[in-house]
Amino acid sequence: MSTDFFSSHQAVLEQAVAAAAARGYWSPFSESPSPRIYGETANDDGRAAFEAYRGHDFPLDLDGASGKTGAEVSPFGFDLNISYPQVPAPALTAQSQQALESWREAGPRAWVGVALEILKRLNQRSFEIAYAVQHTTGQGFMMAFQAGGPHAQDRGLEAVAYAWQEMARIPGLVSWEKPQGKHDPIRMQKQFTVVPRGVGLVIGCSTFPTWNGYPGLFASLATGNTVIVKPHPAAILPLAITVNIGREVLAEAGFDPNVLLLAAHGAQDDTAQALALDPAVKLIDFTGSSANGNWLESNARQAQVYTEKAGVNAVIIDSADDFKSVARNLAFSFALYSGQMCTAPQNIYVPRGGIETADGHLSFDEVAQGLAAAVEKLTADPAKAVEVTGAVQNSATLQRIQDARALGLPVLCESRSLPHPQFEQARVQTPLLLKAEAGDPQIAREWFGPIVFVVATDSTADSIGLMQRSVALHGALSLSAYTTDKAIAGQVQKAAERAGVSLSLNLTGGVFVNQTAAFSDFHGTGANPSANAALSDSAYVANRFRVVQTRWHA
Amino acid sequence: MSTDFFSSHQAVLEQAVAAAAARGYWSPFSESPSPRIYGETANDDGRAAFEAYRGHDFPLDLDGASGKTGAEVSPFGFDLNISYPQVPAPALTAQSQQALESWREAGPRAWVGVALEILKRLNQRSFEIAYAVQHTTGQGFMMAFQAGGPHAQDRGLEAVAYAWQEMARIPGLVSWEKPQGKHDPIRMQKQFTVVPRGVGLVIGCSTFPTWNGYPGLFASLATGNTVIVKPHPAAILPLAITVNIGREVLAEAGFDPNVLLLAAHGAQDDTAQALALDPAVKLIDFTGSSANGNWLESNARQAQVYTEKAGVNAVIIDSADDFKSVARNLAFSFALYSGQMCTAPQNIYVPRGGIETADGHLSFDEVAQGLAAAVEKLTADPAKAVEVTGAVQNSATLQRIQDARALGLPVLCESRSLPHPQFEQARVQTPLLLKAEAGDPQIAREWFGPIVFVVATDSTADSIGLMQRSVALHGALSLSAYTTDKAIAGQVQKAAERAGVSLSLNLTGGVFVNQTAAFSDFHGTGANPSANAALSDSAYVANRFRVVQTRWHA
Repeated sequence: MSTDFFSSHQAVLEQAVAAAAARGYWSPFSESPSPRIYGETANDDGRAAFEAYRGHDFPLDLDGASGKTGAEVSPFGFDLNISYPQVPAPALTAQSQQALESWREAGPRAWVGVALEILKRLNQRSFEIAYAVQHTTGQGFMMAFQAGGPHAQDRGLEAVAYAWQEMARIPGLVSWEKPQGKHDPIRMQKQFTVVPRGVGLVIGCSTFPTWNGYPGLFASLATGNTVIVKPHPAAILPLAITVNIGREVLAEAGFDPNVLLLAAHGAQDDTAQALALDPAVKLIDFTGSSANGNWLESNARQAQVYTEKAGVNAVIIDSADDFKSVARNLAFSFALYSGQMCTAPQNIYVPRGGIETADGHLSFDEVAQGLAAAVEKLTADPAKAVEVTGAVQNSATLQRIQDARALGLPVLCESRSLPHPQFEQARVQTPLLLKAEAGDPQIAREWFGPIVFVVATDSTADSIGLMQRSVALHGALSLSAYTTDKAIAGQVQKAAERAGVSLSLNLTGGVFVNQTAAFSDFHGTGANPSANAALSDSAYVANRFRVVQTRWHA
Repeated sequence: MSTDFFSSHQAVLEQAVAAAAARGYWSPFSESPSPRIYGETANDDGRAAFEAYRGHDFPLDLDGASGKTGAEVSPFGFDLNISYPQVPAPALTAQSQQALESWREAGPRAWVGVALEILKRLNQRSFEIAYAVQHTTGQGFMMAFQAGGPHAQDRGLEAVAYAWQEMARIPGLVSWEKPQGKHDPIRMQKQFTVVPRGVGLVIGCSTFPTWNGYPGLFASLATGNTVIVKPHPAAILPLAITVNIGREVLAEAGFDPNVLLLAAHGAQDDTAQALALDPAVKLIDFTGSSANGNWLESNARQAQVYTEKAGVNAVIIDSADDFKSVARNLAFSFALYSGQMCTAPQNIYVPRGGIETADGHLSFDEVAQGLAAAVEKLTADPAKAVEVTGAVQNSATLQRIQDARALGLPVLCESRSLPHPQFEQARVQTPLLLKAEAGDPQIAREWFGPIVFVVATDSTADSIGLMQRSVALHGALSLSAYTTDKAIAGQVQKAAERAGVSLSLNLTGGVFVNQTAAFSDFHGTGANPSANAALSDSAYVANRFRVVQTRWHA
């Protein structure tokens, strides 16, 4: 049964492997929520499915549940009132280990086949997941659909493709024949078996539960490990639906559905720590704060730990042909999901002497005002703006905007609350732009949310140096630069390579620094403190399994 | 210049990549010390080169040396009296970082080309290195030549092949074109750059300085990192020669020779710790004790740490066609280099009810006596025996034999000192075989050296269970089993896969459990406490470099 899944999806798998090598554009999951692609009733069905979850027990039976949990609140202003079974950490790891006993025997084709079938079914449920993502993370619907659905599925498939590629390199049965001069050769038979590490733990975040959760989930699953998914207490639903779909596929394929388990829990309890330190847990994928990520790296020593943490993302503005399109592009990056992206730009380095453009010199203040004006323009119409900004996921982010204001820096663009035409109680907030000086220690840390500092530097060379030191110390998941000077572009690229952060150069069109495309852009580099791995590459999958061989005389 | 090296060796590199995938027999470096292969004068030249080192300053100039070090003693009974420059750890890492500045820019072809040329020259100097290995480790000459020369070179090449394969998958410049329905597609150019992690540290051991040192050295070097080689104070010479050859190739290729540095130091100083904790050191390859390996894993948190540590290797004897050939094979494994191999068998599990053979039932005592008799026979002629046993590297191993005797267990075969026909003062010791009970806690740890326990178990099922628990707790680098029963063989294989240890089944001919062949046998699995990595696989190389990309509108 499970190998049928492999055969059904083998063509897509092979395309995915080829795409990850070529790194041109490729995606099997349409990012357009068009009824022609997803079906005429897909949107209505997805919304209805989401609404049906509200106010009820989530339809997931787990053995050993000690109670119920769940207190999700839509950032658009209503309680979800969904209850999930809560299973104590030791019961979860025991069940996961039990499920591993048979799952580990199934082998790479079965593991990968099941993973691919889950991804296919996730894609079919993209609308339902989009509503679940929207009303836990606060993303606008289009982002919730694209990033939470097909783009997340792409990242999952990408991890499966890398996993398959690495496992497929391990031969099964091999003959070994060593010449012995005039004597008969020594002949051995050798059998190589791919074995999983054990139980994998995926620790989800509150802003991109599926996009950041799927790579680790699918990388571990496709390499024969069992997986416990521990969602952020504020964003359980998207991963609960994911786990349900996965368990359904596992059961159909004849496997113990407990290969995939949900560790729903309440805020402030110690479920994450208890799971992370369990000796059975051998793989951990984490997205979240640097404090928690560093804690895992230091303490969960029995596991391979893959972390994506915080960073301080920078933009270097040196010169531009058309500054208006620069400002338009950046304003969108500032406002997109109210800066609640690990890739959102924060520190915008501009020489205090200003910059050259095709339309002449712009002073520092003109550049700063130009960025502010672009933000104002983008957010002028609340009905349109809310589709870009979405809502603020966490009230701590609202407080952070207050804290940023309290720094006393000159305000270039005030953060405004916008009314949402559909959701009266939605927490919508436009970007706050502040003017800062390069030496200000306050900007040398992440200000998660719609908070941007336009930073006066001595020169572009100074900007580059500041960026390089900041990335080395604090990490970064994105870097953007604008220059019309090829030599400067080369210097920024070299500095980016030294610092270990990927660079977007002169983005003015429909590509934004906070977005990466699966199969082409690596998300993170694994080479600076913001993340110890990239999504996805060989290093992300190769240590999730090991090879055990048996040899004997032929 | 350096790319010439790549072109010269490209054919061998491609064969190596293919061999590591196919895992049949392959080696480009002849293990036969025949004059027809290495040249008529190769042996004399190698010995003369070794003798010329004795009593002198080793010909290596390093900047910043604070003094000299070196107190190597041949286990065959004489002082080497070689002095090496000692450079303080901070000066070494500073020079290594300086050398990294240009080395990192050279790119994969140059890195791999230099690595391959070094390997070629190491091969040409195999005799010189063999004498250096013999008279630091105590290996018999043939083992010193094969394991210290061509087999070590094979393992180095294998690491380079994996490194090249992973880096070659990263495209350089790529076009990305995303369809936009009726509109023009979005077109981007993307450039991907392989960047090294930083400074690599290779911590050598006293028993296999080159065989265990080359994989990490070449894996790090071929991925663009600089490398500091820190030999064990008792076995500096083989790695000093290696570093000298490497520096010569680097200089010829126009690179800073400090890409490769030697950290010779005296016993008991803190050079290893100081280097391992230096923030510039991003990769560490270690072979040695579990205590030191675990310390590195816990404390050198800024680095990727690859360790090969201690284990308790087991043999399970269930049944045999020809017990004499079983005993002959095992006796050789016990005696080979006096058990000073991380893969040497230690605990031999035999059912206390005895075993079945083609010649009828053998009682436990008959099995135990058969093993002892085979050891006695193998070591009866001292002149022949010393070629197998070599000499004892460390006096602590002699003491360990005393400690094993003091356990008071029944002696099956006494460890004898043998006279060496060539070296009067050589520390030669035959294996000690003791009879033990399965429950004895004393056998649940490594007894490094020629110390073997023949362990009475309740049954083969009991033997398998004991093995599996022991590997999970204490690790193992090898496992051997003898059975004529296919079902039992299947059970052992399954248990080995669960425990994460590779299995040799029914070895009776010219293959021994303590030997692995590069390009075919993985050395270690990375799946039990004896080692966190295998030599070599994708996981061993994939995280030694990262990829930084730059993208811009086409």
